[in-house]
Parts: sequence; C-alpha cells; structure tokens
Amino acid sequence: MSWEDHVRKVIPYVPGEQPKKKDIIKLNTNECPYPPAPGVKKLLEQYDVEALRRYPDPQASVLTDCLAEYYHLDPDQVFVGVGSDDVLAMAFLTFFNSDRPILFPDITYSFYDVWADLFRIPYECQPLTEDYRICPEDYKKPNGGIIFPNPNAPTGVEEDLSMIEDVIAANQDVVCIIDEAYVDFGGKSCLELINRYENLLVVQTFSKSRAMAGLRVGYAMGSKKLIKYLQDVKFSFNSYTMNSLTLAVGAEAVRDDAYFREITGRIIRTRERSKNELAELGFTFEDSKSNFIFASHKTIPAKELFEALKAQDIYVRYWNKPRISNHLRISIGTDEEMDALFVFLRKYIKEREEK
Amino acid sequence: MSWEDHVRKVIPYVPGEQPKKKDIIKLNTNECPYPPAPGVKKLLEQYDVEALRRYPDPQASVLTDCLAEYYHLDPDQVFVGVGSDDVLAMAFLTFFNSDRPILFPDITYSFYDVWADLFRIPYECQPLTEDYRICPEDYKKPNGGIIFPNPNAPTGVEEDLSMIEDVIAANQDVVCIIDEAYVDFGGKSCLELINRYENLLVVQTFSKSRAMAGLRVGYAMGSKKLIKYLQDVKFSFNSYTMNSLTLAVGAEAVRDDAYFREITGRIIRTRERSKNELAELGFTFEDSKSNFIFASHKTIPAKELFEALKAQDIYVRYWNKPRISNHLRISIGTDEEMDALFVFLRKYIKEREEK
Repeated sequence: MSWEDHVRKVIPYVPGEQPKKKDIIKLNTNECPYPPAPGVKKLLEQYDVEALRRYPDPQASVLTDCLAEYYHLDPDQVFVGVGSDDVLAMAFLTFFNSDRPILFPDITYSFYDVWADLFRIPYECQPLTEDYRICPEDYKKPNGGIIFPNPNAPTGVEEDLSMIEDVIAANQDVVCIIDEAYVDFGGKSCLELINRYENLLVVQTFSKSRAMAGLRVGYAMGSKKLIKYLQDVKFSFNSYTMNSLTLAVGAEAVRDDAYFREITGRIIRTRERSKNELAELGFTFEDSKSNFIFASHKTIPAKELFEALKAQDIYVRYWNKPRISNHLRISIGTDEEMDALFVFLRKYIKEREEK
Repeated sequence: MSWEDHVRKVIPYVPGEQPKKKDIIKLNTNECPYPPAPGVKKLLEQYDVEALRRYPDPQASVLTDCLAEYYHLDPDQVFVGVGSDDVLAMAFLTFFNSDRPILFPDITYSFYDVWADLFRIPYECQPLTEDYRICPEDYKKPNGGIIFPNPNAPTGVEEDLSMIEDVIAANQDVVCIIDEAYVDFGGKSCLELINRYENLLVVQTFSKSRAMAGLRVGYAMGSKKLIKYLQDVKFSFNSYTMNSLTLAVGAEAVRDDAYFREITGRIIRTRERSKNELAELGFTFEDSKSNFIFASHKTIPAKELFEALKAQDIYVRYWNKPRISNHLRISIGTDEEMDALFVFLRKYIKEREEK
C-alpha cells in the first residue's frame, strides 16, 4: 500500500488567468476597474501594526457589525469569509449534507460542481432555456438543496424576485442559496426574503462592486439559525479566517457608501454603452445586469476572437464547454479600456469580413 | 421534513478568550509579546492600494518563494494558508481519507478531533506517558495517518528527531504530519527529513515566533507530490485563500531574519528565567521547548489560580479536561509581564498557605 492510495484526489477549479505583466487590458475576471474606497489608503498608513501580534477577533465583529448596519440586519444574521468562495464552500459543507442531489443550472458558476465533488455531495444540473433562463419547475422535485447565482454567471441574466420566491417557497425543507456576487450592478437583491424564509442564504462579495478582489472578503446573510450553523462549521474548520487587517480594511470600504454608489453607477453606464457598441459590431447577447457581458459574434468564432484579443494583451474569458463554447465573457472595464477593445474589434472584424 | 434535518451539526472548537479590554496581561493564547518586524509598518504605509482591486496571485508566489528561499527548498515544496489551522484542515481533508483511524496523542492540540469529526475521519487517541511523552510503539499499528505537534501542545514537551523518524519510517504507507507551531523556541525541526520521506508534511506558523497571529499565515513543507495534492484540494475549495496584502506583509516578515532571531531569543531567555521562578513558587512542569510553560502547583488547584489571576486581569489558559485539569498553560510574555505574574502569584500563594 502507498500513502497515495488514500489521498482525496480532485480536479481543481481553474481560475481566470492572472497575467503578471503590466499594461494589459484585463477584462477576464470581473474585477472592478476602479480603485478601492479612498479611506483604505489612509487606514493602511495609520494602521497600528503591533495589533497584528494578537489573534484577530474570532467573531470578526468590526466587519459583521458594519455590514449588519448597512443592510439593516442583526449582526447574528451576517457571516463573513475569505471571499464568497470561502463562504460558499462552508455553506456547501454545512447545508448540503443529504443523500438527495442538490440542484443548480447547467450553465453557472463553475465552482459549484467542484465543491460538490470535493465534499462528495450528489448533484444534478438543470438546463437553462435557450435564452439562458431558469425554469422554476425544474427546481420542484425532491432535492438536497438549491443554489444559483442571480444575476447568473457567466450569462449575466437576472431572474426576477417573484420567480426566485416561488422556488424558495417550494423548497422550505432544504437550504436555498442565492449567490448575489453580481447583484450591485442594477440587479434586485432577494435579501428582503430572508425574514420570511429561514432556509434562505444570500451570499455577496467585496470582489466586484467594492473593488477589492485582492482583499478576499465575502459574506452571507440569512436567519440567525442558518448563520449559527454556518458559524459552527467555520469554527470547526478555522477559528480565525479573517485577519485583523482585512477586517479593518473591509469595514472602511463598507462605510463609504457614496463611493460605492459612484463606482457601481459608472460601471453600469459603461456597460449600457458597451451593449450598443457590441450590438453594432455584430455581437448578440442576453441582457446583462452584471459587470460583464456574455456575447457571441454572428460570424466569427469566440475562440478565434479570444485568441486574437489575447495577442493584443486584451484578456477576456473563454470556456471551451458545451453550450457556451461560442461565447466570450467580457468584464466591464473603464471607458478607455472598453474603447480600446472596440477599436481593436472593429478593425479585426472588418478585416476578417473583407477576406 | 425540515431544512435542519440535513445540516452538518458539529461541536465547534472554542479558541482561547480574546478579551476586548486593554491593559490586561494576556498569557493565554501563545501570542508573541513583541511587535511584528519593523519593515511591516513601512510596507503598509507605502502599499499600492489600487492593487487590491485585482484578484491575488493564486499561487501566492511572493510568499512561497520567500519561504522556499529561507528554508532552502523548491517553491513547489511549500504550501501557504490562512494560519496553520487552515493548512492543517486542508491536510486532514486531503490526506486522512482512509477507513482506518488516524492516530494522535490524547493530550494535544484540541483542534485535531474537531477536524476529524467535521470531515468524518475515524481517529484513535494514543495516551501520552505520565511525563507527557509519546510512546512510538503506539504508532506502529494499522492506521489512516499520523499527526502530532512537536513540541507538543499544551505540554511544551519536545520529542527528539530519532523517535520521530522512527515513527515516520514505520508509517510510509500513510501521510505523517508534524505540527511545528512551537518549534522556533529552541526545538529541532524535522524539516531535514522531508527529502527522505515523501509522506512527511511539516507545518509551521507565523502566529507565534513571527509575531503575527493577527495576520493568519501558516505553511506546510513536504515533497512536491504531497504539496501538489494539497494544492489541488485547496484549489477545489478556494482559489485565493491568501489576500494580496497578507502575502506582501508575510514576505516582508520572513525577510527580516535578524529580527526573528532577536525576538525568539528573547522569549527563550524569559522562558528559562520563568522556569526558575515557577519552580521556586512551588510549580512543577515538564521541560518546555515552546513559548509557554504547562505547570501544576503542588498545593493550589489550577482552576483556583486561573480564576484568581483572571480577577487581576492576568489571563492564562485552563482546560477542565481529563489528565490536564490541574494545569495552567502560561504563555511567555515580556519580562515585565512575567514579573507582574510572579509578584501576584508570590503574594497569592503566601496568603493562601498562611490560611
């Protein structure tokens, strides 16, 4: 027998490329094109470094209190983690613990099946319609739990609240997780439903709308019961997942709501303009309520465009996967970045069509 | 059926108290009494905050490269995580995946059985001798993996390298983890064995000797094969566990080896002096090679002393658990903090004995 026989072997999630070179146009991982709230710089300059010799507050109160106040919740209704990936992984481990399969869309965040495999959770993917919409009836059969993003990734499509409530209402015997990583770009959060459904967990992140993918902060909101179960598993995994510096920086960002509104507003305006530009260039796409557009060109294969863009140091995201292999996911950058993208695409498509 | 039926229910680990009030003498969680390396302050003052809008480097190279250089290893032999708790939790999930029980001492870090319960790993505790030593023969039966700290916690007792190698050599069909959280205070690391045993994982932390419990950084070192398996599971859990700020701060701390030697040297000197003081006060203890002393008083119950100290805002650690319920674990503070402890104990013990 070898020590390797009993190793848990997995096929890991592959994140979007993080090229180390500078001066690239990076529209491949849905990062925010604007810097974090200005208070963050000042906070770091004045930070009491000696405090780092002590363990952080295991309750992460400075941040959970701040989020609770922002969303008008009790601090016991908020859970924070190392990015929404950490929050979701803990939630899978905690709540998806039945012999029945959990349900999620066939086209969705590609980490869901990875977590299910890691924790040996049975799952069944439910096909989206041709225009990338969820069929609520697919989620009304016996299951071990439900998760989907809203707006969905990588499609950007938003489902309305009444459909979501319909699904949750039909599944009160399991935990339902709505992953709202992209909700701050004009989408409607289902947070208001957590007081009515104690089995509903809403997950959000600092990575997109709060301009701090590099800080790794995500959070979940739900009933006190749900949060307590999640806390217990987290405390059985690692008492202190959030370091002191991260808690302070995160709280500082939440406090600056004006800045948050300014940058999300700017991204929404750039997105709407980008939709027009892409349509003119011959792309088709479902309407996006996120900080990216998931688009397909009428004549040129997505893979070709992906590679042509990359050769120009313009990075977008491409998956060679069933049903989406002719799509590009283009994150919304600054107006200047988007213009550079459109200039290149205009030229490329014109030359290509003249051939 | 209720959604609660299939929740994973656990009894979480309870960390040592983190009182929020100032001006206490905190000798209860083995934190370093000295501040982090001076370069950390400067780094934070000059940090390029805009970098936080981007995802961190998923490979955490700035820190793994730095650690690899420090320990003369290949970067592929180093894994970093959110404190050694995160590293150990991932290692349990990755490597302890057999139907046979894993083995660890009955008196040891109290997170081991919590992780085993969380991940449903069978385990069997092996009793330490009366003087808190490991019997190597206990670890030579069929098992699913082996883990123990060296020096052990909360006893502070160090086992010598030949005994550890004997255990590893007898268990080449499973993964052996040596948890060296406390090795930098005069202990001998078994790092030199990783090139001979590809099933040996050595885990260390920034929380004690590097004065940054608040930063949450731990790391594992082992064969490339072992590290790759661990990476794969980590990438299936959360691609980016280490945030950009933490990676930069951690690397800065590793670079200042002179400071590291200075503070660990100081702690060792204070510990040796504290042993004399405690012996004079009527305490007995096994020799400690860590940054704490695990002591029992000849006449006064540990619980009473724990509470009397706490009433004076002097915090030490006490467990009401079999075999250790008459012991206090006293972290080594500054000389001034230790003196305040000894002054109080001298007075308390004298008054108590005069009664």
